[in-house]
Amino acid sequence: MSAVDRAVDRRAEPVLFDLHDRGVAVLTLNRPDRMNSWGGGLARAFYECIDRAEADPDVRVIVLTGNGRAFCAGADMGDLDSISGASDSSDTDVTQLVGERHPHFVTQLRTPIIAAINGACAGIGLTQALMCDVRFAAAGAKFTTAFSRRGLIAEYGISWILPRIVGWGAAQDLLLSGRTFYAEEAKSLGLVNDVVAPDELMAHTLSYAEDMARNCAPSSLAVIKRQLHKDALRNLHDASAEAETLMHESMLRPDFIEGITAFFEKRPPSFPPLSTQKEETP
Amino acid sequence: MSAVDRAVDRRAEPVLFDLHDRGVAVLTLNRPDRMNSWGGGLARAFYECIDRAEADPDVRVIVLTGNGRAFCAGADMGDLDSISGASDSSDTDVTQLVGERHPHFVTQLRTPIIAAINGACAGIGLTQALMCDVRFAAAGAKFTTAFSRRGLIAEYGISWILPRIVGWGAAQDLLLSGRTFYAEEAKSLGLVNDVVAPDELMAHTLSYAEDMARNCAPSSLAVIKRQLHKDALRNLHDASAEAETLMHESMLRPDFIEGITAFFEKRPPSFPPLSTQKEETP
Amino acid sequence: MSAVDRAVDRRAEPVLFDLHDRGVAVLTLNRPDRMNSWGGGLARAFYECIDRAEADPDVRVIVLTGNGRAFCAGADMGDLDSISGASDSSDTDVTQLVGERHPHFVTQLRTPIIAAINGACAGIGLTQALMCDVRFAAAGAKFTTAFSRRGLIAEYGISWILPRIVGWGAAQDLLLSGRTFYAEEAKSLGLVNDVVAPDELMAHTLSYAEDMARNCAPSSLAVIKRQLHKDALRNLHDASAEAETLMHESMLRPDFIEGITAFFEKRPPSFPPLSTQKEETP
Repeated sequence: MSAVDRAVDRRAEPVLFDLHDRGVAVLTLNRPDRMNSWGGGLARAFYECIDRAEADPDVRVIVLTGNGRAFCAGADMGDLDSISGASDSSDTDVTQLVGERHPHFVTQLRTPIIAAINGACAGIGLTQALMCDVRFAAAGAKFTTAFSRRGLIAEYGISWILPRIVGWGAAQDLLLSGRTFYAEEAKSLGLVNDVVAPDELMAHTLSYAEDMARNCAPSSLAVIKRQLHKDALRNLHDASAEAETLMHESMLRPDFIEGITAFFEKRPPSFPPLSTQKEETP
Repeated sequence: MSAVDRAVDRRAEPVLFDLHDRGVAVLTLNRPDRMNSWGGGLARAFYECIDRAEADPDVRVIVLTGNGRAFCAGADMGDLDSISGASDSSDTDVTQLVGERHPHFVTQLRTPIIAAINGACAGIGLTQALMCDVRFAAAGAKFTTAFSRRGLIAEYGISWILPRIVGWGAAQDLLLSGRTFYAEEAKSLGLVNDVVAPDELMAHTLSYAEDMARNCAPSSLAVIKRQLHKDALRNLHDASAEAETLMHESMLRPDFIEGITAFFEKRPPSFPPLSTQKEETP
Repeated sequence: MSAVDRAVDRRAEPVLFDLHDRGVAVLTLNRPDRMNSWGGGLARAFYECIDRAEADPDVRVIVLTGNGRAFCAGADMGDLDSISGASDSSDTDVTQLVGERHPHFVTQLRTPIIAAINGACAGIGLTQALMCDVRFAAAGAKFTTAFSRRGLIAEYGISWILPRIVGWGAAQDLLLSGRTFYAEEAKSLGLVNDVVAPDELMAHTLSYAEDMARNCAPSSLAVIKRQLHKDALRNLHDASAEAETLMHESMLRPDFIEGITAFFEKRPPSFPPLSTQKEETP
């Protein structure tokens, strides 16, 4: 295949996968003419790219962004329109649109995933962004939950995660009103971790991701992600008791020796990839 | 009854009910000489007004505010004084003061309720405001939990809702110290959604409420309110699974067709009132 | 023992206990040459000082701070180093380092505890600070969770308390990246309640603590602390139902009569210490 053919091929892929040389895989939603809306095979391609990143020991951090003006404008209304016509006969069309997974599946990865929200972020696009671990947004990026204005409900766990990120007051405002808001307000509410100029968004996000890939033990990242979710529904005593067990386990891993040694030697640590270690995170 | 008589009557009502023409019912706590404190029949009148709004298909959003300088200064200390004298003999006086409902009953309405906090907001008045879905406050409005300074405890669920709105750090500060704070700090803590100039508070709140009444499906509002509370104590997986079921249900409602059609036609939606639909929210 | 001997003795104590005359006990972590890191008997001394404060009816509020440049830089790496060498043979060294209690034990005290974070606050030092009820920090104080950079996990309940204080977005950023941040960002995230100039930190904290010791009923403080933790894992209905019971109990205490009477007489209340009351908090 010629370089031109490959470029043409690449333009047709609904999600792009780029492995950077420092342990960061960048996944780009790539239906710019549809504002990267969920549909047209995007869901399946997204899952494949995530699975590929999660299985690759060279990938320590995943970055998720969008091509063009939007991050993800939600479900593809073209698809939804045909679904609404068929809605009383079958639910399978909806399943085909969203795919076989719920957005929260990324919370169960061992690899951290960071959203670089380059533009419009709405509906299921917002839900998916909120399921990522960390979020950076381009100044001026437009957000909305949108559901209440379409006769829909709080989809796929956004009513679980949003109040835990921004608090109940802001969550009720955003979910009930379905109003539009911008990156700057999203930052002030804690919905995104930081706002940067649009042309600095990827550099900022990659710098953060590369620092994490280089300096944080993959085993630590995998365990900490699980702890947060398990602690959501247990009491502090049980959370701390399991943390003690997990701490003792972590002290038996080479990562701990390397982390402490590097700290004393004032040099960057060199943590092995997760899959080459005998002790896989459970 | 003459207009003068009606005006006199109206002055005597502990809570005023005004139905605006755009689907918004404004409830006004109306004991201005007692800083709208809870007592003197206010509780019963409040419940009646809420029930009336909830039962009226023309009411899509409720706004709660106070007449005069205060929003609600807490329990009526005059009443409490008599209670404290009788406290060792009977608890019924307290029940009479607060009425037969706990402030969180408004979280179970299908109608959103928005607090327009025009002035002092203390004790049970603050608890009631925190149980509303969205809060706007007049600049300079004074807040306090007050309980710890009166030998009382965190009353009626404020120790549940406050940390979920402002986070544990701020909640512990405000509940333990019982200190006074102002609308501007309340905004920075996320306790209120926005602060506006006192003479713009009602216009701002009504504009927000009318936008919701006009553009958001009543069925969506009712379901989303319930989702938030159910999701508080279940895991993300279960929350998302039920959301999928609720989404499928919503797609069978006329509201969804209207929401999508209006979106494509770039016009405001025209959602029917909730009670005229066959599918009542469960 | 001469005054000089006592001063020498005092320099050797890993935690200092100072009872101020207004009901405030100041506990100072006192291993300044080790940045007050956890180790060298500090844990045991800390528990003894806390127990002493909790048992003393004259102590109504505890303030926790550090001597020198740091608040607490985490586990003593010198100790950890020897542990890592012995980690495959025994876990008891870790237990000796941290002591027999988990940092969350301070949440079960009836006495409020306020952290005055004078400098570096890292690892278990940060976890301990987050378990305090209120936090003030000196401008410029440096924070980090650090765990992921050492091959460790989210220790001792920090993955439970941090998201509840700062929300999930900030918690995942801080726990996964293990990055350094400063008091000003900690304030904007809600991780500390306020930031003040370093040379005003103790005056600010003591003023807040003395106000609480003077004006808040010890019985109220003890009950409210428990309510917050019990409400974390029950629904709003049950939380409010128990609050009603607790309110009725509080109205039978002398503290309530004193609180209301002082309020009406526009004078400061005079609440008795907790342990002299017949009705101990359950």
